Amino acid sequence: MSFLYKADPARGAVWAKLFAERLPDMPFKIWPDIGDPAQVRYLAAWQPPEDPARTLPNLEVLFSVGAGVDQLDLSGFPAHVPVVRMIEPGIVERMVEYVTHAVLTIHRDFLDYAGQQRQACWTELPVRPAASCRVGVLGLGMLGTAVLERLRLFGYDCAGWSRSEHRIEGVACYAGEQALDAFLARTDVLVCLLPLTPATRHMLDARLLGKLPRGASLVQTGRGAHLVQDDLLRLLDDEHLRCALLDVTTPEPLPADHPLWWHPRVRITPHIASATHPETAVESVLENLRRHRLGLPMIGEIDRHRGY
Amino acid sequence: MSFLYKADPARGAVWAKLFAERLPDMPFKIWPDIGDPAQVRYLAAWQPPEDPARTLPNLEVLFSVGAGVDQLDLSGFPAHVPVVRMIEPGIVERMVEYVTHAVLTIHRDFLDYAGQQRQACWTELPVRPAASCRVGVLGLGMLGTAVLERLRLFGYDCAGWSRSEHRIEGVACYAGEQALDAFLARTDVLVCLLPLTPATRHMLDARLLGKLPRGASLVQTGRGAHLVQDDLLRLLDDEHLRCALLDVTTPEPLPADHPLWWHPRVRITPHIASATHPETAVESVLENLRRHRLGLPMIGEIDRHRGY
Repeated sequence: MSFLYKADPARGAVWAKLFAERLPDMPFKIWPDIGDPAQVRYLAAWQPPEDPARTLPNLEVLFSVGAGVDQLDLSGFPAHVPVVRMIEPGIVERMVEYVTHAVLTIHRDFLDYAGQQRQACWTELPVRPAASCRVGVLGLGMLGTAVLERLRLFGYDCAGWSRSEHRIEGVACYAGEQALDAFLARTDVLVCLLPLTPATRHMLDARLLGKLPRGASLVQTGRGAHLVQDDLLRLLDDEHLRCALLDVTTPEPLPADHPLWWHPRVRITPHIASATHPETAVESVLENLRRHRLGLPMIGEIDRHRGY
Repeated sequence: MSFLYKADPARGAVWAKLFAERLPDMPFKIWPDIGDPAQVRYLAAWQPPEDPARTLPNLEVLFSVGAGVDQLDLSGFPAHVPVVRMIEPGIVERMVEYVTHAVLTIHRDFLDYAGQQRQACWTELPVRPAASCRVGVLGLGMLGTAVLERLRLFGYDCAGWSRSEHRIEGVACYAGEQALDAFLARTDVLVCLLPLTPATRHMLDARLLGKLPRGASLVQTGRGAHLVQDDLLRLLDDEHLRCALLDVTTPEPLPADHPLWWHPRVRITPHIASATHPETAVESVLENLRRHRLGLPMIGEIDRHRGY
């Protein structure tokens, strides 16, 4: 049997080294050098190969190398193949860093100060206490929960929204469609950490963003397809929204002539908010291989019907 | 007797309102409307009046409205007048926010990404785990300690330096001149939170900054006079230092034609990292007035000889 890796080759080389140390009996292959396809029992992928059921007829488990699985077209995989998303501490810590930086950027007016620097302008802007800055996180999974727990330490007025009920200490948790409007109405900084599913695709449209109070801002750390970018641009130009910090876009990379690049109240980063650390990602996969062999449930196995 | 306020008038109006509510028997005056000078027993000031011993002959306590007292020329005050610096939670939390944002900006390459955005360039840069980013804070007073305690939660490799011995959980504390070189040699992000005294004036010069490892960065949240700006510019141009985030400069405001404004690896903010919150500042002063009347030591009373 063998383990096939099909994602960023530089990271793959680190995986190969770690597998050689930790699980030397398992042949480790990096796409496209897959060896005997019939031997491939495990696949770790960002994008699957074409027609995976035929290409890898004996596949037993599909691991996503990302925290989500929305980028994977699962339709070609037999229903008996479990799909496991990446749950490892690196991905959480990187996201906490990114969102903390983004919320501080908005709360403490760092975009305005960067603009002032371009004009050599030394003007103090009024500062608001953190308690008067209402942060709201869409999505209360592993990432949303960790982000809120960190932001709470800064004294922000924190809330979260999810389809299902959650409890997080010191955070006002809203659940279900009927609570969404109340959640939006109290949110000055909206952070998107939703999974991408048919229900959340294009969810961040003019209707939803228009329910935020005037002057609210967006931190988009979900997937590009959550957001209707033209609606965002219109709400920024109408000054309903103050600014948007986007780590994901449609498409990626964002074309050089796209107006989002040039909007003075938009910051773009190239989908770097979070990424798996090869070291801890391999730990997580090895633990799941162990569980799979023992017939135990794997950590991060998704419900293929629900999509997350 | 009366209380005289001599600093930002907009904040003074908030102080006046809070004094009227909390200590209605104490006449509260805002400079230059000082009433009968002989009645002034308490002065809260950013800058003192000229010849304070003559102007305010019956002064009993001088309160600084800032966390430090270096901006106050104390030479005109009689030796029996205690000098009290501002210790209140707002000033600490604002500084923790600013430095956290600055360290994340450096660690997560946000200056580089802002530069890439100006060229519509979508390129992922390699990310380092927080544990490999060595933060070092100069000055382990109230601010330095609070900053380190927050940064530690992000997993940064944290150290601090001070003239005297300190113990902070999870932080390597260095003490005294003889430990400074070792502290600098292990520091990738240097944060200055020193008091300004004759011993620390111009301390951040080419000699000191040159002892940081190549590629280190500076977060300057002390006072402008700690830093020799020409030395900083030379070390940036030599690429010994990677970037500098400056909240304080010499002079302030920084003149519009100063090269620091235009340096691509320098970010300037106009001395906004921290400021007292009028609400909590007044709490702190009222508590000290109570202590003074009871003959108890006041919180934040400085050693006028040492300067902090």
